[in-house]
Amino acid sequence: MDRDDKSTAGIRHGERCARWDVFEIEMDGPPHGNPFTDVELGVTFSDGQRELRVGGFYDGEGTYRIRFMPDAEGPWTFVTSSTARSLDGLSGRFVSGPAAPGLHGPVRVADRYHFAYADGTRYLPLGTTAYAWTHQVERLRAATRHTLAASRFTKVRMCLLPKAYLYNTGEPELYPFPGSAADGWDTTRFDTRFFRRFEDEVRALRDMGIEADVILFHPYDRWGFSALGPAADDRLTRYVVRRLSALSNVWWSMANEYDLVGTKTEDDWERLAGIVAEEDPYGHLHSIHNCGPFYDHAKPWITHCSIQRVDVYRTAENTDTWRTQWGKPVVVDECGYEGDIDQGWGNITGEELVRRCWEGAVRGGYVQHGETYLNDPEELWWSKGGELVGTSPERIAFLHDVIRQSPTGVLDPLPSDWDAPRGGVHGAYELIYFGFNRPRFRNISVPAHGRFAIDVIDTWAMTIDHVGVTANTSLRVELPGRPYMAIRLTRLPDDAAAG
Amino acid sequence: MDRDDKSTAGIRHGERCARWDVFEIEMDGPPHGNPFTDVELGVTFSDGQRELRVGGFYDGEGTYRIRFMPDAEGPWTFVTSSTARSLDGLSGRFVSGPAAPGLHGPVRVADRYHFAYADGTRYLPLGTTAYAWTHQVERLRAATRHTLAASRFTKVRMCLLPKAYLYNTGEPELYPFPGSAADGWDTTRFDTRFFRRFEDEVRALRDMGIEADVILFHPYDRWGFSALGPAADDRLTRYVVRRLSALSNVWWSMANEYDLVGTKTEDDWERLAGIVAEEDPYGHLHSIHNCGPFYDHAKPWITHCSIQRVDVYRTAENTDTWRTQWGKPVVVDECGYEGDIDQGWGNITGEELVRRCWEGAVRGGYVQHGETYLNDPEELWWSKGGELVGTSPERIAFLHDVIRQSPTGVLDPLPSDWDAPRGGVHGAYELIYFGFNRPRFRNISVPAHGRFAIDVIDTWAMTIDHVGVTANTSLRVELPGRPYMAIRLTRLPDDAAAG
Repeated sequence: MDRDDKSTAGIRHGERCARWDVFEIEMDGPPHGNPFTDVELGVTFSDGQRELRVGGFYDGEGTYRIRFMPDAEGPWTFVTSSTARSLDGLSGRFVSGPAAPGLHGPVRVADRYHFAYADGTRYLPLGTTAYAWTHQVERLRAATRHTLAASRFTKVRMCLLPKAYLYNTGEPELYPFPGSAADGWDTTRFDTRFFRRFEDEVRALRDMGIEADVILFHPYDRWGFSALGPAADDRLTRYVVRRLSALSNVWWSMANEYDLVGTKTEDDWERLAGIVAEEDPYGHLHSIHNCGPFYDHAKPWITHCSIQRVDVYRTAENTDTWRTQWGKPVVVDECGYEGDIDQGWGNITGEELVRRCWEGAVRGGYVQHGETYLNDPEELWWSKGGELVGTSPERIAFLHDVIRQSPTGVLDPLPSDWDAPRGGVHGAYELIYFGFNRPRFRNISVPAHGRFAIDVIDTWAMTIDHVGVTANTSLRVELPGRPYMAIRLTRLPDDAAAG
Repeated sequence: MDRDDKSTAGIRHGERCARWDVFEIEMDGPPHGNPFTDVELGVTFSDGQRELRVGGFYDGEGTYRIRFMPDAEGPWTFVTSSTARSLDGLSGRFVSGPAAPGLHGPVRVADRYHFAYADGTRYLPLGTTAYAWTHQVERLRAATRHTLAASRFTKVRMCLLPKAYLYNTGEPELYPFPGSAADGWDTTRFDTRFFRRFEDEVRALRDMGIEADVILFHPYDRWGFSALGPAADDRLTRYVVRRLSALSNVWWSMANEYDLVGTKTEDDWERLAGIVAEEDPYGHLHSIHNCGPFYDHAKPWITHCSIQRVDVYRTAENTDTWRTQWGKPVVVDECGYEGDIDQGWGNITGEELVRRCWEGAVRGGYVQHGETYLNDPEELWWSKGGELVGTSPERIAFLHDVIRQSPTGVLDPLPSDWDAPRGGVHGAYELIYFGFNRPRFRNISVPAHGRFAIDVIDTWAMTIDHVGVTANTSLRVELPGRPYMAIRLTRLPDDAAAG
């Protein structure tokens, strides 16, 4: 709460809130019965032009909260409505000021296949996965935050609910519901400590400039959380979205490996996705991740394709096909992890993961990172977070630097030779990627207009060698005969062309 | 001719011929007009039980020849028939004795998906490609023979006709027809020097125990040989088959990249394949190789699928699917070559080629070798032959040693985990291959009956570490966390199991 909190009888809030930050209203309300289910609370916010309706939530001990992310600067007013008389018809106002440095608003789809923050700043998903990091002890969570802060990652894929799986067999400290697996959970109530911790971590990510790709459901469960039944699923979904959606860095992933959640049908996913849409007035990015068959990414609520590897050998290479098929951004959230565990999804080399990232990138998509190196305490980054020891993150960051140098800030697929995909911006910035092939030279076509700087990029060594300038439409480029090379053509300003 | 040649007026032949060797009859006949087209000559051979009809050919200077490969020991008789009276109705006899050491007869399909020599000896195609090696100068041809003799290769894929293509732009010393590209070829006659050289090289391969996968037509042409027209194609095909088919090591490949030979339709290929079948009484192996779409491998004359890479990333991994689809052996004759040229089909690492060979092998097929390292004289093995400098041949030979140790001498696909193909002989000899994945350990299932020796194979380092014996049906096997590893389970004799 700001120092200048405005407090009337039982309602407290700040008078100012930076754009895209969280404006929070705290209210005292009925603590008796089951406030989680007995009381409905909503608030309508208006900036004089638009009205946005936001749901409130019970936070325990007689406290109700509303969280709101103002998306425009200027004065806002609000009025509450509630089934509890003491929470109904309360009104107030606040002023939204300029966004804090580094806060650009929620990420949106931009240019159909890419992303940008709400303020127009380009956003590139340089994501990693640490599914269960928020369910670990503080020592590990602190290590994860430290690792992320020191990294170039811009997204973390993470589960709301505790996870029971290989290399992840411990009990979480907190559960979403009161009760126990042995004696049953009271799914009509929530353990607010669980949600407070989760949202604190999401907020910590936000303050590091990292998006939280929040996975609402998943199949890796020994507590019954994957089989709560529709009513409890609905309550949980509504509660989570009301708590979290005012954090600008939230993305909604309906599920990890939805097709392995045997208790839910497509109707369930559609209903739950509808609740998310209903309770999220900001339209955060929204997806659903497969194990085997894809969900129907054509569904209008799905903002981007969140894809898992479809084949041991060939996945990132399908990126352009999937773009064309779905007309949406393609984010390959799981393409195999750098590591050395026994499982085929978690034991590729850094070289192979970086290769997959490049293969996806020149085809106009985003292949994401994960790490699964075996260690004695079984603290694998992909699940528990902690420390990264692999070779791929800095190379993926290097790739993103190369993408960022494009005049559009992104890459799109370009007409290519059969054996070397080309991507970038036609006639302005073109990358030809050779992957595991290792030519000693290559005759390439050069766009017809202008002069082009020619660079040879070693995507593994992270070197860029400027090898010349050309105004010809074809060119022989010498290469070192090593894998993982790329050629870059950058159109020079016309001044330079004249010089 | 043997010292004990039997000579009657104008007919000469030996009195003995080892089984699967070449029995040759030389006859003086009409030299006038155009003996290549004017005279038809055939011989019927009989061992008293069967009659085999063989076509003769004109070899220039008034000499006609018949070549015959006896497939059974014992006495054979023959009688000629011809449109030339002096060649008609001549008869004779010879005795076929035991095969020379190392001569096992033609290779046949065996066990539906594999191969064996006619004498039952298992044959594994450890093939390489040197398309135009017979059209090079003697220095290069001698180097090629030397390289092959020192190698473990058991097959060479090679073009009958000269080749004009990248890294292969020189003129051959000899052409199949009299004439010239400038003034036209007389396709009604043959330059016997061209064919004698070719068959001498095929015979040299035979004597090294190497099969000659003879490609009859191909698209890489600047002389017109790919567009001779049906009549000349037919004459050429008949002539070649009559000259070569008595060499036990011949395989017929109707074409390389048949689909790029724009002058021929499926009807042409079917007609030409029919001529091969008509003129080859031994039923040598017979295939047709694609660039893009496969030929219909279901055609009855096709003995095995001769396949070219269908995708930059994934080809060998389809081997078991193709076996099931066509019900025939799968030989991936071109899966990418070890090398460093500018072309994507010729610049993979030795590691990647060996990986592809293993991927195909555990799925019950045969991925073949090729090498395309750039060198100053542009003498690339894949086309001109010469010397091998790559890393893959010895590793592919090591793979074949592993295959050979199977109780059936071959591998067939077995039920596998999704990420690690398993192949071998169910319950007796099983290989699990991890490819570019690099687990630090693996929990594996072991066949239910018997005790099994467990080996960890480093397919790149060519080491086999015996790590234990198990009688359990599941087992944890420690692995080094490097790519290109395999686990082998070999059932021990029951005596050992009791001990």
